[in-house]
Amino acid sequence: MDEKILVQARNFRLHLGEKGFFLESGRILPEVSIAYETYGTLNADKSNAILVCHALTGSAHAAHYHSPDDQKPGWWDDVIGPGKTLDTNTYFIICSNILGGCNGTTGPRSINPLTGRRYDIQFPVVTIKDMVHAQWLFLKQCFQIERLHSVIGGSLGGMQVLEWAISYPEKLERAIVIAATGRISAQALAMNKVGRQAIMRDPNWKNGNYPDGAGPVDGLSIARMMGHISYLSYDSMQRKFGRDFKKNDGLYDFFGEFQVESYLNYNGYNFAKRFDANSYLYITKAMDLFDVGMGNGYREILSRIRARTLVVSIASDMLFPPWESEELFRVMHEEGVSVSYYEMESDVGHDGFLVDYHVLNPVLESFIGS
Amino acid sequence: MDEKILVQARNFRLHLGEKGFFLESGRILPEVSIAYETYGTLNADKSNAILVCHALTGSAHAAHYHSPDDQKPGWWDDVIGPGKTLDTNTYFIICSNILGGCNGTTGPRSINPLTGRRYDIQFPVVTIKDMVHAQWLFLKQCFQIERLHSVIGGSLGGMQVLEWAISYPEKLERAIVIAATGRISAQALAMNKVGRQAIMRDPNWKNGNYPDGAGPVDGLSIARMMGHISYLSYDSMQRKFGRDFKKNDGLYDFFGEFQVESYLNYNGYNFAKRFDANSYLYITKAMDLFDVGMGNGYREILSRIRARTLVVSIASDMLFPPWESEELFRVMHEEGVSVSYYEMESDVGHDGFLVDYHVLNPVLESFIGS
Repeated sequence: MDEKILVQARNFRLHLGEKGFFLESGRILPEVSIAYETYGTLNADKSNAILVCHALTGSAHAAHYHSPDDQKPGWWDDVIGPGKTLDTNTYFIICSNILGGCNGTTGPRSINPLTGRRYDIQFPVVTIKDMVHAQWLFLKQCFQIERLHSVIGGSLGGMQVLEWAISYPEKLERAIVIAATGRISAQALAMNKVGRQAIMRDPNWKNGNYPDGAGPVDGLSIARMMGHISYLSYDSMQRKFGRDFKKNDGLYDFFGEFQVESYLNYNGYNFAKRFDANSYLYITKAMDLFDVGMGNGYREILSRIRARTLVVSIASDMLFPPWESEELFRVMHEEGVSVSYYEMESDVGHDGFLVDYHVLNPVLESFIGS
Repeated sequence: MDEKILVQARNFRLHLGEKGFFLESGRILPEVSIAYETYGTLNADKSNAILVCHALTGSAHAAHYHSPDDQKPGWWDDVIGPGKTLDTNTYFIICSNILGGCNGTTGPRSINPLTGRRYDIQFPVVTIKDMVHAQWLFLKQCFQIERLHSVIGGSLGGMQVLEWAISYPEKLERAIVIAATGRISAQALAMNKVGRQAIMRDPNWKNGNYPDGAGPVDGLSIARMMGHISYLSYDSMQRKFGRDFKKNDGLYDFFGEFQVESYLNYNGYNFAKRFDANSYLYITKAMDLFDVGMGNGYREILSRIRARTLVVSIASDMLFPPWESEELFRVMHEEGVSVSYYEMESDVGHDGFLVDYHVLNPVLESFIGS
């Protein structure tokens, strides 16, 4: 890239009237603000809008740079931009921070207007359906968009796409569900539990009521380390770290580390600096609760989908293994949904949709352009 | 079983003279005591002794009951006993607690005779070679055994068996290595790291210097939860827990739990009551450092084995996947070692050697009797 394209982070407060924002749980949020970014230009008939849904620890900053000094662009800059797969010369790309997040959208660290204090764990449990509901109101109210060209996302983002296709079947033409699942497994629930337990057992969590800048850094970093293992794969970790030992440590030093330990530690603490622990609790909870079939049956719910759907899995994904995506595809297909399936031949694990662009981009291009 | 067979836990102090016990690290332990149990009777020519090596959190209590009131027998009671696979009518079975452990053998919570205080993290890093060395001295000094009929163990126990076959090639006739590996993967290193980090970041760890009964219970229970995930499998967790939610919890309660969360939590804390956190740190460290090829090369080291060897893997093992055992087998076989390989068709994961006895026992019987 020759030149850094700049983008500005924005914020939109939903018009909710006096009733507030009704959640699936029956609880009500009096106020919801949405942090978002856009790339490209909305056309006159508003038919070129693509919504990008971010993953657990992502944000609305999906592409471009906030300032010329930024070292790194947004998290999907390899996919979004002029001439890229999500071509900003053609499409109007929108990415918004999810409800419950910590990057500008209303979440547990926001001020409750009814009390003047942070919600913290008084924040209601939110679901992926709630996140998508907020996105829909935002798109309607902020841009008067009535129908999306595509909704696309990976991991928790892919779950949002699926929920979009189920909850608003007429509001999107294409749904692209990457490295996701219709309901997470007991093993994935267990991995989220370890992370949450580490946060909630950190004395600095203080029942969620920690001061800014002094949260449960240790617990959150352990949660992130646990997460990393599930985002990578046996092979990718083997290739990247093997059994290399830190050169300045002795094998028999009690505190000596293998390279993989050092990597996890570094990334864990780095993450804890930029992410809020309560948001991590709420968002993993939303992921756990996601179950397209809950109450109504998996098959019946999936049969409601009208969008042309592409399901992409990653061969080496240990968090949401390919057979979960295959099942999604198979049931949709049997129910007459227009659905295609593609398994990415990638051995880097769940994170493949953020790494193996040479495999992902051509698949996305051919589907979006169709 | 009609009647509970009782066994007594015993202890043997190694005769080390003034020099002490030399460790691989170059450090020296002035005193080593070994906790052990035996089942059956040593024959006159001492040719019927089988050493059973326990796993990470096991103990010398491998079979029978300590008292008629005990609810549960030793950890491998389905394998060891009269008429069982390791038949106590025929064999003399010995199991000893590993060096670094917390069940009677010298470990980090033992008193350092030189200072009169607990070692805690002044305890030297011990390796699996050190554990095996201590076992060898113990067998020679306590029973005057010069050669073992078999050495057998699963997981960390299997690594000890492998080390036995490498370090004392003439001292055992048969080596049975179950659900183990010649060197643990980066992914397994990473999982151990998460556990250790949880312990060491628990403020009650106090740099290893916690009072008895007030250790890092939260950290140790998180380590155990992490461990449990790696001991089970996707399928076994799915079958056992699926997405069942605790009946008295609400889906939208912040503290509401899925059954799998509740199970992990319960088992985590139960474990923390019975196991010492510092031992957990030292033993996982020993597991991490285990690498049969370190320094000398994997192939060359394995070629030294003289015991008839059986390598057993478990198809669904995510901690030490079957391909690691296959590699062990293949290299030994190429080097002319008398080795057989058997992959257990079990979907319960790493713990299969403690669960699927109907598969394991016949395989062991035919090898041990041969």
